[in-house]
Amino acid sequence: MISKNKIKFLQSLSLKKNREKYQQVILEGYRLIEEVARANIAIEDIYCTSEMMNIINHNHLLKSNNKIVISDKECRLISETQNSQGIIALVSIEKYLQDNINSIKNKNAVILDGVSDPGNLGTIFRNCIWFGINSIILTDNSIDPFNLKSIRSGMGAHFYFENIVKTSSKKIIQHLKKYNFNTFIADLSGEDMQNVNYQENWALVLGSEAHGISDSFKEFQKVTINKFGSIESLNVSVASGILLNEITKNNL
Amino acid sequence: MISKNKIKFLQSLSLKKNREKYQQVILEGYRLIEEVARANIAIEDIYCTSEMMNIINHNHLLKSNNKIVISDKECRLISETQNSQGIIALVSIEKYLQDNINSIKNKNAVILDGVSDPGNLGTIFRNCIWFGINSIILTDNSIDPFNLKSIRSGMGAHFYFENIVKTSSKKIIQHLKKYNFNTFIADLSGEDMQNVNYQENWALVLGSEAHGISDSFKEFQKVTINKFGSIESLNVSVASGILLNEITKNNL
Repeated sequence: MISKNKIKFLQSLSLKKNREKYQQVILEGYRLIEEVARANIAIEDIYCTSEMMNIINHNHLLKSNNKIVISDKECRLISETQNSQGIIALVSIEKYLQDNINSIKNKNAVILDGVSDPGNLGTIFRNCIWFGINSIILTDNSIDPFNLKSIRSGMGAHFYFENIVKTSSKKIIQHLKKYNFNTFIADLSGEDMQNVNYQENWALVLGSEAHGISDSFKEFQKVTINKFGSIESLNVSVASGILLNEITKNNL
Repeated sequence: MISKNKIKFLQSLSLKKNREKYQQVILEGYRLIEEVARANIAIEDIYCTSEMMNIINHNHLLKSNNKIVISDKECRLISETQNSQGIIALVSIEKYLQDNINSIKNKNAVILDGVSDPGNLGTIFRNCIWFGINSIILTDNSIDPFNLKSIRSGMGAHFYFENIVKTSSKKIIQHLKKYNFNTFIADLSGEDMQNVNYQENWALVLGSEAHGISDSFKEFQKVTINKFGSIESLNVSVASGILLNEITKNNL
């Protein structure tokens, strides 16, 4: 059983201002929720259909959670997608809403400068976790990383980060300089990425799909992926994957 | 001026069966159409608003095309997107609808085995053109590459290919063997991609997002991207970019 007020509350989390106010998000779909449980994130409630309840009760990652059975109709009311699979979780994002850039020191970090497509953002998050990068910094004008589309395309990656910080470009650049980050920006006209020495405590800056890196970051070293063909640019999530592979491959 | 029948015809191209019957697609948006003109693809007609006509007439790539002025309302009727920008082109895809796998010999090729997401397919096409790969082979169960979403995310890449062939897995495997392709499959449990010798005349097989590579291709050598973190998989378009960078980097 779920009250009308609770349904209203869960629906309200589709808006960024409410996610920030309550420091919570809803996640939809079995695999995503399982991945979040695997990442050791505390799930506050799981709302699921009775059919899905049987499946969850056999999953050691999810069976001990607080579960509330809802009807198919209630599920559709809460869900943002066509295909919630009858399972929705309420999760705290409190740890990711602190403006704690100072906790990112002597680490490697990826910086997103105005990335605006939720699918790209989620895919970049997956890339970061795959390559062992635990800190993300976003400029103010980037999309909200807890947008539901971003979470979906991140497939659980969000919840493996130690730090997800969103702040001004100015603050980010001051921080990078103060703590001597080796900072590189992905650009179409920089040094061949294979010829660059990526010392630990590096930061990689990726720009927006439409406008590239903003001028404020242009003082840092540009690195470029070799191109053989005629097309103008790579998708930013693909570029991030290629660069992260290059940067991390010598750290085995 | 545009007739009602012509509008109906252009609308009908949103269906795959009509694209195949008439061997034509419609493309939307200024940058995409400019990119296709740059790729030396013959554009049959350009339908544009009078506002957009002024812009096109100053673009040396587009100014000599056959242009038809349409109203905003007509544009919305033809358009599949919320944002056609008032410019739509009709383009022949005849050269890509021949089942000419035999034209792909002594070349490098990317093979898509059941890739089903149009965004991923378009992004993979961009990666291929960036890295100088001119031949794509798709298995029958892959998504139609001329799906409008695929074209949009390809951002013009489609029209730089020499060959886009769609056929059965059986025919593809016979072809790879007959012409001695060095064939590699992207897999989570293969040889570290850095330790593999990618001789020319190679073929890289990428599997579906949900099911990976199908059994029929499993006889070929598996190659794997190094992983450092806890997430299960990379997005297939990111994986293709990383692998293509690795394979092509020694061919400078």
